[in-house]
Amino acid sequence: MPAGTGPHVLRRINVVTVLTALREGGPQRVADLVTATGLSRPAVSRAIDTLRAEGWAEDADQRSGAGGEIRVGRPAAVIRFRSEAGHVLGADVGPHKILAMVSDLAGNVIAERREDTHRLRGGEEVLRALLRITTDVLAEAGVPAGDVLSAAIGSPGLVDTKTGTVTLAPSIPGWASIPVAAELRSLLACPLSVHNDVNLAVLAERWRGTATEADDLVFVQWGARVGAGIMIDGRLLRGTNAAAGEIGFLDLAEHRGPDGPHIVTRDTMGPFERQVGASAIIELALAEAERQGDARLRELMLRARPHDDVAALFDAASAGSALAESIVDQIAARFARGLAAACLLLDPELIVIGGGVSRAGARLLTVVERHLRRRTLVRPRLALSSLGDTAVALGATRSALDDVERRHLSPDALGASR
Amino acid sequence: MPAGTGPHVLRRINVVTVLTALREGGPQRVADLVTATGLSRPAVSRAIDTLRAEGWAEDADQRSGAGGEIRVGRPAAVIRFRSEAGHVLGADVGPHKILAMVSDLAGNVIAERREDTHRLRGGEEVLRALLRITTDVLAEAGVPAGDVLSAAIGSPGLVDTKTGTVTLAPSIPGWASIPVAAELRSLLACPLSVHNDVNLAVLAERWRGTATEADDLVFVQWGARVGAGIMIDGRLLRGTNAAAGEIGFLDLAEHRGPDGPHIVTRDTMGPFERQVGASAIIELALAEAERQGDARLRELMLRARPHDDVAALFDAASAGSALAESIVDQIAARFARGLAAACLLLDPELIVIGGGVSRAGARLLTVVERHLRRRTLVRPRLALSSLGDTAVALGATRSALDDVERRHLSPDALGASR
Repeated sequence: MPAGTGPHVLRRINVVTVLTALREGGPQRVADLVTATGLSRPAVSRAIDTLRAEGWAEDADQRSGAGGEIRVGRPAAVIRFRSEAGHVLGADVGPHKILAMVSDLAGNVIAERREDTHRLRGGEEVLRALLRITTDVLAEAGVPAGDVLSAAIGSPGLVDTKTGTVTLAPSIPGWASIPVAAELRSLLACPLSVHNDVNLAVLAERWRGTATEADDLVFVQWGARVGAGIMIDGRLLRGTNAAAGEIGFLDLAEHRGPDGPHIVTRDTMGPFERQVGASAIIELALAEAERQGDARLRELMLRARPHDDVAALFDAASAGSALAESIVDQIAARFARGLAAACLLLDPELIVIGGGVSRAGARLLTVVERHLRRRTLVRPRLALSSLGDTAVALGATRSALDDVERRHLSPDALGASR
Repeated sequence: MPAGTGPHVLRRINVVTVLTALREGGPQRVADLVTATGLSRPAVSRAIDTLRAEGWAEDADQRSGAGGEIRVGRPAAVIRFRSEAGHVLGADVGPHKILAMVSDLAGNVIAERREDTHRLRGGEEVLRALLRITTDVLAEAGVPAGDVLSAAIGSPGLVDTKTGTVTLAPSIPGWASIPVAAELRSLLACPLSVHNDVNLAVLAERWRGTATEADDLVFVQWGARVGAGIMIDGRLLRGTNAAAGEIGFLDLAEHRGPDGPHIVTRDTMGPFERQVGASAIIELALAEAERQGDARLRELMLRARPHDDVAALFDAASAGSALAESIVDQIAARFARGLAAACLLLDPELIVIGGGVSRAGARLLTVVERHLRRRTLVRPRLALSSLGDTAVALGATRSALDDVERRHLSPDALGASR
């Protein structure tokens, strides 16, 4: 018999099968588990014994507050997955905020902490804030650091996922030089990974967002900067150098002189971001307002400028300003050109748009869709992110949960000691 | 024991293991197979019995001409895979030629037929030519139609791989309305599939071309038209509507008026093809030659025009014409913009460039690489296709072989009758 197919392996597969049924179907009786898994009653009982011994399952009524039904005779034991058997930490370190959350193994968020980072100066201060927020959120959740089984951090820029260091992050000065994973190890002994923020957002969209039904999707983060996370066949496309999805660096602008190209450098914004990012939108609106002598819109945009907040422009368009509407149309047309490149190359099922600009809502989506239609051969579905600015932290949570499943809840791990 | 893991399944897996060892390692003795597979001698013998009974293996000396070595004593039987146990048909139906090849199960091409299709008018004539060439190439190979286990056809345009019909093929007028797979069924009773030509080319590059070591690659067909085949993690990216890789429709040109965009329609060439395709190159060279009063280059380009053959331009550049060189540079700069979009979104390990224009060779590659470097964050390897215009037919052959492996040489099929 070849290695890896012996009866003890089958037994471990059965343990995972029963665990999966408990996690997906909630607390159940042995008889229910026999039906749900197709395994024999002795096989289910053996699996439950293993899960109990390793702390992943227990009788539901062992837990105060569970049940409460009045039963006649000896009730059949109801078994539950101990989602509190471990916890994960997911955090988003962005140019505007740090958001950290602690969740149980069922993905319930137990506690979260958020901090504005506008006033922080440089990577060192951001790191100190991250360490403090991590300590605080664990305390709030009542979870000792030792109970955290895995942690994942999202960061803008390019990330070397192998070493857990950010190699390029122009939006947080000084951040790229910090060994984030290594620093966090002073607080957490568990495995710890660092990921590109948009790659985490696409995980979150598929887990709990707009894309729960899609296997081939592109998530576009549309804010001060523009980036994309690509999922193909349910798997994240990281790229050979972990640099896939860099849609912000597309150069779709007109030629500039005989030599043409804008030169892409690693520490500036990309050509596409400069065309459609939040500050480009505000600058365009300001210029147009001045050109057309629209003092009201000019005033709104001047007030919006320091915060890169484009909401006022979209509000003005909704309120009937023809000028604001024409600016929204111009921006949507530009954005559709970049989106078209992703559609033509990838032909995804769904495109989810998130980030600050996407908060403009369905109106913006409709205009983008109209422009996109003229630029592609087939039409993907477009949708707005429903996760708001929690997408990256939720995606980090999902990534940490995936890691826990691989290391603790797989056939290789479960029942290995028996 | 769950379904699908019983001992008879293990036995079938062993049959595939032995077959794979024979196919990859060539004719071998039982003892060699024991070493190669890690299986026991009885298991190997049982597997060989099954393979013999089903016609996939035989003693090597059963075949005339095999062996020839003089041995002392009773020689141990040498077992071989019967690569002649079945055949596949792979064909490329393009705007310039039809190329069909018959191969054995080891992928050796037994016969091939090629026909210029310039003079054919419309899809019906192309179909009749394909049927005739298929009949001819099978006759030349001495393979009865019934021995063909699978056939695959490559076509330009968009293909509905489920029904085997081409839904869009502007480069062969009338071709899109022909139910190619259904028509070929009059000749071949085997499974028959139709694919986008560039998707087949990428399979061929990975099988026998420049990309045998790469799992993440983009193949760009650069000829009269421009298309890309994308492979991620060793798997072809087809897209939700089988329309991935449509790089020819990228719109990277300057804006045209306030409304900006070029409108993409399904039955014209795409904006990027119009910028860098063979005829765009010739028109640019003609215009420049006229502007600069270079009568020689103008003459060369006028002669090249009817055949979309750009070789003369690249030859002139190699021979020292500064004007030809500057045109090549302009074209390479334009091409690099499209390639940059693929790099930024996909971050592939390798980009292989094939098609008519790529025959310009290493000189062109160097210039494209120089321009690409200014437009991407990380640098993929660039290479020229080594398969010439046989890539699509070879890819069709590989696709048909894959189908044979799935249907005849997998654990589900082998030994199923025992």
